[in-house]
Amino acid sequence: MNEGAAQLIEQASRTLGPKAVITDPRDIEPWISDWRGRIHGASPALLAPSSTEEVVEIVKLAAEHRVPLVPQGGNTGMSAGATPPADGSAILLSMRRMNRIRSIDAEDHLAIAEAGVVLATLHEAAHEIGMRFPLTLGARGSCTIGGLTSTNAGGTQVLKFGTMRALVAGVEAVLPDGSIHNGLSGLKKDNRGYSIDQLLIGAEGTLGVVTAVALRLVPAIAARAVAWAGVESPMRALDLLRFLEVRTHSIEGFEIVPRDSLELVLKHVPGTRPPLSAEHAWHALIEATTPDDDVDVSGELERLLGLALEQGILGDAVIASSEAQAEAFWKIRDSISEAERAEGQTLAHDISVAVPEMPRFVVDAKEQIERAFPGVIASGFGHLGDGNIHFHVRAGGHAAPDWYDAEGAQITRFVDDLVTAAGGSISAEHGIGQLKRAEFARLAEPGRVHALRAIKHALDPLGIMNPGKLVP
Amino acid sequence: MNEGAAQLIEQASRTLGPKAVITDPRDIEPWISDWRGRIHGASPALLAPSSTEEVVEIVKLAAEHRVPLVPQGGNTGMSAGATPPADGSAILLSMRRMNRIRSIDAEDHLAIAEAGVVLATLHEAAHEIGMRFPLTLGARGSCTIGGLTSTNAGGTQVLKFGTMRALVAGVEAVLPDGSIHNGLSGLKKDNRGYSIDQLLIGAEGTLGVVTAVALRLVPAIAARAVAWAGVESPMRALDLLRFLEVRTHSIEGFEIVPRDSLELVLKHVPGTRPPLSAEHAWHALIEATTPDDDVDVSGELERLLGLALEQGILGDAVIASSEAQAEAFWKIRDSISEAERAEGQTLAHDISVAVPEMPRFVVDAKEQIERAFPGVIASGFGHLGDGNIHFHVRAGGHAAPDWYDAEGAQITRFVDDLVTAAGGSISAEHGIGQLKRAEFARLAEPGRVHALRAIKHALDPLGIMNPGKLVP
Repeated sequence: MNEGAAQLIEQASRTLGPKAVITDPRDIEPWISDWRGRIHGASPALLAPSSTEEVVEIVKLAAEHRVPLVPQGGNTGMSAGATPPADGSAILLSMRRMNRIRSIDAEDHLAIAEAGVVLATLHEAAHEIGMRFPLTLGARGSCTIGGLTSTNAGGTQVLKFGTMRALVAGVEAVLPDGSIHNGLSGLKKDNRGYSIDQLLIGAEGTLGVVTAVALRLVPAIAARAVAWAGVESPMRALDLLRFLEVRTHSIEGFEIVPRDSLELVLKHVPGTRPPLSAEHAWHALIEATTPDDDVDVSGELERLLGLALEQGILGDAVIASSEAQAEAFWKIRDSISEAERAEGQTLAHDISVAVPEMPRFVVDAKEQIERAFPGVIASGFGHLGDGNIHFHVRAGGHAAPDWYDAEGAQITRFVDDLVTAAGGSISAEHGIGQLKRAEFARLAEPGRVHALRAIKHALDPLGIMNPGKLVP
Repeated sequence: MNEGAAQLIEQASRTLGPKAVITDPRDIEPWISDWRGRIHGASPALLAPSSTEEVVEIVKLAAEHRVPLVPQGGNTGMSAGATPPADGSAILLSMRRMNRIRSIDAEDHLAIAEAGVVLATLHEAAHEIGMRFPLTLGARGSCTIGGLTSTNAGGTQVLKFGTMRALVAGVEAVLPDGSIHNGLSGLKKDNRGYSIDQLLIGAEGTLGVVTAVALRLVPAIAARAVAWAGVESPMRALDLLRFLEVRTHSIEGFEIVPRDSLELVLKHVPGTRPPLSAEHAWHALIEATTPDDDVDVSGELERLLGLALEQGILGDAVIASSEAQAEAFWKIRDSISEAERAEGQTLAHDISVAVPEMPRFVVDAKEQIERAFPGVIASGFGHLGDGNIHFHVRAGGHAAPDWYDAEGAQITRFVDDLVTAAGGSISAEHGIGQLKRAEFARLAEPGRVHALRAIKHALDPLGIMNPGKLVP
């Protein structure tokens, strides 16, 4: 351990108390690898402050001793943005003890949650007052509000409610100079200069430590309807989404699933069964909700899907007849990654292009990749309505255990080049972190790289905030 | 004229042609004072590029010769953010020739408009395809998309649709280093580092020149209903808004008007008449709209106001029986500032506090100001649902023509102190510009001032982008 880190730990132990300073390697160990187990870091200590003031203390010590901090929430990130470097030069800053919901108000449609509040906990708190925090994703039982904010997380309801950027009403954070940025005022309108809130959203902890967040709530769901439709192509899936969107405001989830992904789930995930009797090349999983007790959302969706069937937009469709069946439909969608892993090595790409371009992109990119890398199987699934697809490439015929390492980087570059040529993003929702940094550096416009570096250096001249992440 | 400016003008004339370089003082004169006529600047030239590439040229020349640029749209700003300094050291950069709507698409709910497109022009273009750009304000016939974006403009429909920040899907801008930031991809999800788009929104041209903007459209209005209600206090007005909001999603405007403001309008603005027969201490102007042909928004609003009347929330209410009457109600609201000017000297303050705090703030602040400055009349009106009130102080008994200059700054400091103590903003929607810069510097937290200066210096180290504005 370097001397600065030792001094920081010693001083922090004195001022913050033993609960906030963890140095036993067995207690640190669960938090130093990213959750997919790809990147392994090291840290001499895990600091766990319980208040914003304690975070200020820690940031000031980090600046004094020039020791970098790596803020971490639930450690569920997909790009290793919260994993410390392997040389042990940085200290983990766990926000999990800051887990109070400071306030929650149905009239104001606002909750103020500390960074360490788990998403599912916020969901429950909102539910208890007849409201809802609409953003949700697979890791909801572990991921935290601070992490979701710092990564501008998305999930499955972005179509209607947007990403965290649309749902964050304000951010409280400790900036690298130890000052507190307080954006929790609840002001709906405030034009006093550059938005520090917006700069911190998606900054992956490189510009400061998010300590609390004001979040917008929406009315609770009175009823939902979940449908599974068979369509012949991603183009038809987009036609179906457009068809629904001009006729109802209730669609909040619209995911596409290719036959190949469905088959993998049916093969590997116990208890799953095909929603439709006939085979279809593509499927759309549709969720419609309403906050109004007197709207028959299920009847409306059934009528619209019937109309779409008549017009030849879809091949067949079924509406879940119970909550259990609705959950079963969603389970298929949520199990695709798991099923792929069971099948063999998989390369994941979280990409976006403009919504109207996505159907063609999914089809074209699959063809091109499978031609360029014979034997692999490419498959895109996910948030069609957001122009965001999880574009996965599987080993397919390649049984060699080193396929991933041997050909993976090359395939990823190929995918990223296709996305960039289509004007898209190589990181739609998972952020840059460590894993995508090299590709980001390779593909970003020089002006953008310059601007990001300039902002980073301006606000964190000592480089103490999550160095080695995000900024190319 | 300094030598750098002369060289810049000479080079620009050669590369951009005579249409883009205006040096006749008579042609420059209309654009060098702010539209309220308070601040008078000077400039040796007005550059009017017609393309993003020409803006790049100009920015590079400005950097080469160290000559500041002052970007300007419709010159309708309220804080003199687009007015050049009086010493003639800066050059006006008019964006009005960049006035193409590059694309507009009903299916995608997206328009791409160049910076110089006038808001009313965009409204019409959206209307022609059955869509709507929902942000609107008094200056809609002159203000431009670039200016609206650079000031994060608000207006009267923020309650439902948000400010420009919520309606901008992406920004194209020329950064101070001459690079083009292209955020017009139309990506709904993109997590590649800090949001430059968000940084440019509300930056008042101090970080770059906005050249085009991707804007979100919403479905056109099928029907609207406008009502005028008499209530006994701002608290009751907020009660009424809450009452309506939990029962309908159709409310998109909710403005409060005190009796005193109504009386001034009736006195000074020809053709206006009181909407209700009896007198009320306060009024709410309510606009409800629906994009659905089969929703009877007028009937719904009438029923809800009837219910609110029964419950004693309001004293009386009337729904406009025609478009002409609806316009007449809005004319009262929109004429308040004009009526005040006709009455005498008026100090305007565009402030916000958290929505639940605003009713008490309006009442308490009026009392305190009128006690501290005997003879003046304080009055708050406007966007109650956004926590944003235009808090105006009139000369009242002070007939002296120098009242404004003599006591104005003192009163403004008093108001700003009250707002700051209440956790509010001294600029809810008008920005900082030149006019509020001293007050912003006086009241902002040091950490915030530091962050803003650091960002400004990082992205514009030569200080060529609208210096002397916004950043304290």
